[in-house]
Amino acid sequence: MAPRFFEDFTIGETWVSPPTQVTAEEIVAFARDFDPQPMHTDAQQAARGPFKALVASGWHIAALAMRVFVQSGGYGSTPMVGLGIDELRWRAPVRAGDTLTVRREVFELRASQTSPSHGIVRTRVSVINQDGAVVMTLISAGRVPTRAGRATDPEPA
Amino acid sequence: MAPRFFEDFTIGETWVSPPTQVTAEEIVAFARDFDPQPMHTDAQQAARGPFKALVASGWHIAALAMRVFVQSGGYGSTPMVGLGIDELRWRAPVRAGDTLTVRREVFELRASQTSPSHGIVRTRVSVINQDGAVVMTLISAGRVPTRAGRATDPEPA
Repeated sequence: MAPRFFEDFTIGETWVSPPTQVTAEEIVAFARDFDPQPMHTDAQQAARGPFKALVASGWHIAALAMRVFVQSGGYGSTPMVGLGIDELRWRAPVRAGDTLTVRREVFELRASQTSPSHGIVRTRVSVINQDGAVVMTLISAGRVPTRAGRATDPEPA
Repeated sequence: MAPRFFEDFTIGETWVSPPTQVTAEEIVAFARDFDPQPMHTDAQQAARGPFKALVASGWHIAALAMRVFVQSGGYGSTPMVGLGIDELRWRAPVRAGDTLTVRREVFELRASQTSPSHGIVRTRVSVINQDGAVVMTLISAGRVPTRAGRATDPEPA
């Protein structure tokens, strides 16, 4: 993959991921490692829990949204250095067998105030299930090298 | 563990996790599943990347902060249903071998406007490395059942 630089991004640019199914095994595996609450790790206990069924950890869905974006190659071979996330909202539960699509749209491009070699790309991310329900939204800010910065940097990021 | 209800929380209440080391194997394993960029998955390529070393995916650190909180049993057996995250900032890289401590403080308690059976607990989370550097901060909002709500609900969450 070719690298992409700050100058290559345009506002309104949008990626849509392929549909990705979330299995019970994946929900349990993630939760055992990172969010070991019964509603995420044990289908029987989850049936008596707040969602009456096994549901994915919200952090699992956030991580999955990152995975499909990296896999779709949106930034090419340029490393995407995350600066932060705003307004992350878990809007609906994700159950075993749900199929998710991730949409990411560039809505702000801003020169870095501290480094002319990088710019800030802000994107809105939405995760949508097979019924069209929005299950998660967030705003992501990432740091991307500028073409100008690369030209003056003998070993750029 | 006993359940905790909305009425049991107090502003200023703080948890501090035990120190948790992050290994290269864990960094690579998480990133292969959820953030497969070379700076997270391949030590040799990472040495030429933006941090000149293997660094953890930011989502790995966010998930790890959740894990240590659940493991510390802060909410007892009450399920913590995450509503959202604000102002997540990745402030410094986490390298293989770093030892992290997670601090979580309740700073806002708010009755739910839509459901008297639940309240909203907002916490500030900080992740600090072995040198005292803050590597990540975020604000978390979670929904917790009220004791009053439980009393009227034959099969509560």
